[in-house]
Amino acid sequence: MSAPDFFQQDHAAIEAALEKLLPAESTPPASIHRAMRYSVFAGGKRIRPILCYETAKLFDSDASAAIQVGCALEFIHTYSLIHDDLPALDNDDLRRGKATNHKVFGEAIAILAGDALLTLAFQTLANSAIEPARRVRVISEIAAAAGTVNGMVGGQVADIEAEKKPTDAAMLEYIHRSKTAALICGSIVAGALAGGAADEDVERLRRFGGQIGWAFQVVDDILDVSESSAALGKTAGKDQAQQKATYPALYGLEKSRAIANDLEAKALRELDVYGVRATRLRQLAQFLVARRN
Amino acid sequence: MSAPDFFQQDHAAIEAALEKLLPAESTPPASIHRAMRYSVFAGGKRIRPILCYETAKLFDSDASAAIQVGCALEFIHTYSLIHDDLPALDNDDLRRGKATNHKVFGEAIAILAGDALLTLAFQTLANSAIEPARRVRVISEIAAAAGTVNGMVGGQVADIEAEKKPTDAAMLEYIHRSKTAALICGSIVAGALAGGAADEDVERLRRFGGQIGWAFQVVDDILDVSESSAALGKTAGKDQAQQKATYPALYGLEKSRAIANDLEAKALRELDVYGVRATRLRQLAQFLVARRN
Repeated sequence: MSAPDFFQQDHAAIEAALEKLLPAESTPPASIHRAMRYSVFAGGKRIRPILCYETAKLFDSDASAAIQVGCALEFIHTYSLIHDDLPALDNDDLRRGKATNHKVFGEAIAILAGDALLTLAFQTLANSAIEPARRVRVISEIAAAAGTVNGMVGGQVADIEAEKKPTDAAMLEYIHRSKTAALICGSIVAGALAGGAADEDVERLRRFGGQIGWAFQVVDDILDVSESSAALGKTAGKDQAQQKATYPALYGLEKSRAIANDLEAKALRELDVYGVRATRLRQLAQFLVARRN
Repeated sequence: MSAPDFFQQDHAAIEAALEKLLPAESTPPASIHRAMRYSVFAGGKRIRPILCYETAKLFDSDASAAIQVGCALEFIHTYSLIHDDLPALDNDDLRRGKATNHKVFGEAIAILAGDALLTLAFQTLANSAIEPARRVRVISEIAAAAGTVNGMVGGQVADIEAEKKPTDAAMLEYIHRSKTAALICGSIVAGALAGGAADEDVERLRRFGGQIGWAFQVVDDILDVSESSAALGKTAGKDQAQQKATYPALYGLEKSRAIANDLEAKALRELDVYGVRATRLRQLAQFLVARRN
């Protein structure tokens, strides 16, 4: 499933920007650029770039610089998937219905393609058309969101360490907020900064982003249990097979859905102050919780 | 071997800054921070940070911001070693006389520790005390130097692809300039920018850095053939065993030494215009070519 219809225009703008920012397949060494492009163009929904762009548009009707920031976020998301699928980590053969990067290009190139996408993300941010003092804030926010202290890599480590062990609510919250919510929240905060938002708005959108990002991962847990591999485009039921720490495992399906809905409601309340200006961002948040894959 | 005695003060300042920038081992999740610290404090010579700092001091007697930039460069260098040592890449058990990261922490944590150090590098740069318009230039330069197009990851890929194949002089030059010289050159260019150098000086130091970085890798090739594992702190003779593309393999030892010396001489000529101000940078360049490990 792609983003909802009303985001097709955002989606097209992001695809075009990704195409321009990635080195051509013919640029030497060709194998690494083929591998990077393979995973970036494997059918991602572009949720983080769209969130970034739509948040920026709350404050700036043009917001084209937020498209560049969004591409950097997509590079980071893609690198994390490539490394997460490696045999030493989740050992997954299938991602978005296609063979994973290391199955096609081998482990060495997959590791380096992930490294290269992470590096290209920061190069893209450094070269983005945002006023320099704001640009360094964007870079700092995104690096923190992707890092080890309450960030994506920290969440991945905690996730691995929690496998096959009893997990309490606090640890589960830490894992989900770090592993997934941090970068989604970072996408929204970066969009606000790129759009020129005042500090008060940046902090309000940080609260929105933290809650909607957390809800997003709770929904991911639910879908892993309730949907088929065909619907998801990746191996369903893997969390249970790997004894991952998930919301359905700790709370059951019904309570997990209630938690996701509650987080969504809290997130949406943060947008009230923006009235109809935030209609698209609101629709996007609702899509993230209602999605089926 | 550590840096020469006259750089002990730089070395101490860099160690102290690295210590402050890395999360404590007790910060959760502890395992990733232990792994990051293990490799950062495994006895590196801190060549890139010292080059960055000494270059900045050509233009700014304080240059303390260049220490932060130098730490970011050391994080990038360390991440590249951790990933390079992985079983899927060089499969090395020994680095600087100690067990490699994945031998101690396992492959999953080693992959993530590399990712985390690369991310922390850009966070460190984004938060460094350089005027924002220069700070984004520093970030862009370093990201390019670490990337795929004439940068470090591109060089690593070309290096892997050149194994067990006949290599010509042009390909060998491409590999060495990308794999190693790019980040050394980037350290020098970043130092010049951090120190407030004019564009003309930045470009002059880019030429210096490109040549001394290239010479550095030619010397590395020579040492792999001519020194013992004990002297190197890593497995000697590995290039030949893996049929890597090296200068001694293509030109023989004597010609390789002549090439390194010629590059060193060209590099040093770029510093002539700075007279005695560049004495320390000159000594450092000479050390990089004369080193025995």
